Amino acid sequence: MKMLGVLGGMGPLASAEFMRQLTLLTPAERDQDHIPTILWSDPRVPDRTEARVHGGEDPLPALMRGIRGLEAAGCGAIVIPCNTAHGWYDAMQAGTSLPILHIVDAAAEELRRQGIAGGPIGLMGTTGTLDMRLYQERLGIECLTPDPDVQEGQVMPAVGLVKANRVADAYAPLAEVARGLRRRGAVAVMLGCTEIPLGVAAGPALEFPVVDTVAALARAAIGWARG
Amino acid sequence: MKMLGVLGGMGPLASAEFMRQLTLLTPAERDQDHIPTILWSDPRVPDRTEARVHGGEDPLPALMRGIRGLEAAGCGAIVIPCNTAHGWYDAMQAGTSLPILHIVDAAAEELRRQGIAGGPIGLMGTTGTLDMRLYQERLGIECLTPDPDVQEGQVMPAVGLVKANRVADAYAPLAEVARGLRRRGAVAVMLGCTEIPLGVAAGPALEFPVVDTVAALARAAIGWARG
Repeated sequence: MKMLGVLGGMGPLASAEFMRQLTLLTPAERDQDHIPTILWSDPRVPDRTEARVHGGEDPLPALMRGIRGLEAAGCGAIVIPCNTAHGWYDAMQAGTSLPILHIVDAAAEELRRQGIAGGPIGLMGTTGTLDMRLYQERLGIECLTPDPDVQEGQVMPAVGLVKANRVADAYAPLAEVARGLRRRGAVAVMLGCTEIPLGVAAGPALEFPVVDTVAALARAAIGWARG
Repeated sequence: MKMLGVLGGMGPLASAEFMRQLTLLTPAERDQDHIPTILWSDPRVPDRTEARVHGGEDPLPALMRGIRGLEAAGCGAIVIPCNTAHGWYDAMQAGTSLPILHIVDAAAEELRRQGIAGGPIGLMGTTGTLDMRLYQERLGIECLTPDPDVQEGQVMPAVGLVKANRVADAYAPLAEVARGLRRRGAVAVMLGCTEIPLGVAAGPALEFPVVDTVAALARAAIGWARG
């Protein structure tokens, strides 16, 4: 069995949650039934939204260092539990012969698994991810996004709370934004930043369908590993 | 900053929990404040208790492959979130120039942190760990262990439930065994198998001090990373 490579650390808590979901979603009776995995958790990768929106340092060199490490370790495929990093997907995929399983494809499969066809869907993500139109262009489904003041005043601070280990504090603003998208007509809400499902899981379940992109990517990785 | 190497996958859920604790216990405001870490999660390592007690396959070659991988990735120290694997500690440490932070030393530090001096302490672990006298000899504190029928009838099946992703089912037998050790006079109970704290966390908190060896090892790793 080829090892799975996880290019992580963006953020590290989301990577730990990815490893947990990967394990819990794998049918297994003992250690040896689980998927051999290398997690390259390098939280020093420059901030992806900063790079995209504010002219910050380019994360691509750090991302490619991680990919080289996963190649050297003998991995057979790569997943990246960070949505915004997928803004550099084409450059990363051009730079490695290993397949990189795209998180938006995993999210699309999860929509199908939940029986959700068509939109509009609500899209929550970093300002970088929204600015890149990562979901809008690859999903081909109408996406409703938060107003810019909500995005900067609630979503981005909540993502920052998760990265600062204040997960429980992230619930209220994230739930409020998700409910706002639902009121605007979203049939489901895409939690399109890997910190967001952690915050949303820290309180009562939302009363409408959501897509956890950490779990979706774990399912995609299990699909790769099983055949 | 040198990267931390985690030789994991024994089991993979305990490794994910180690990554979560490592992250949550690190003082951080943003991704870049967290500790760069490589997790080598290879659940194919032969079962350590089988090897020790029943003449099963030697895990050392697989453990050394992981250590070689962590060396090649540029790690500066290694932790192993599996107590029983420490039965091969001397051979692993002799085979690498990187320091391997011993989980029993981390557990001893956690006892001090909790203000627990002297014993007896209750010791829960795999049959391999108990047979090796890993804690008894390195801690220098009297350890009370479950009777053999309880060990084989409750502790080992509960460890197996966690490895099979049935974490909630592991709570009742583990809590019962811990309470039995407490009744025999244990001032605290050492959860000396990295699956056990996961099972114990799946229900109401125990009403006496326990040592979570996953969290203890995470604290030791943070201590190394912070210098």
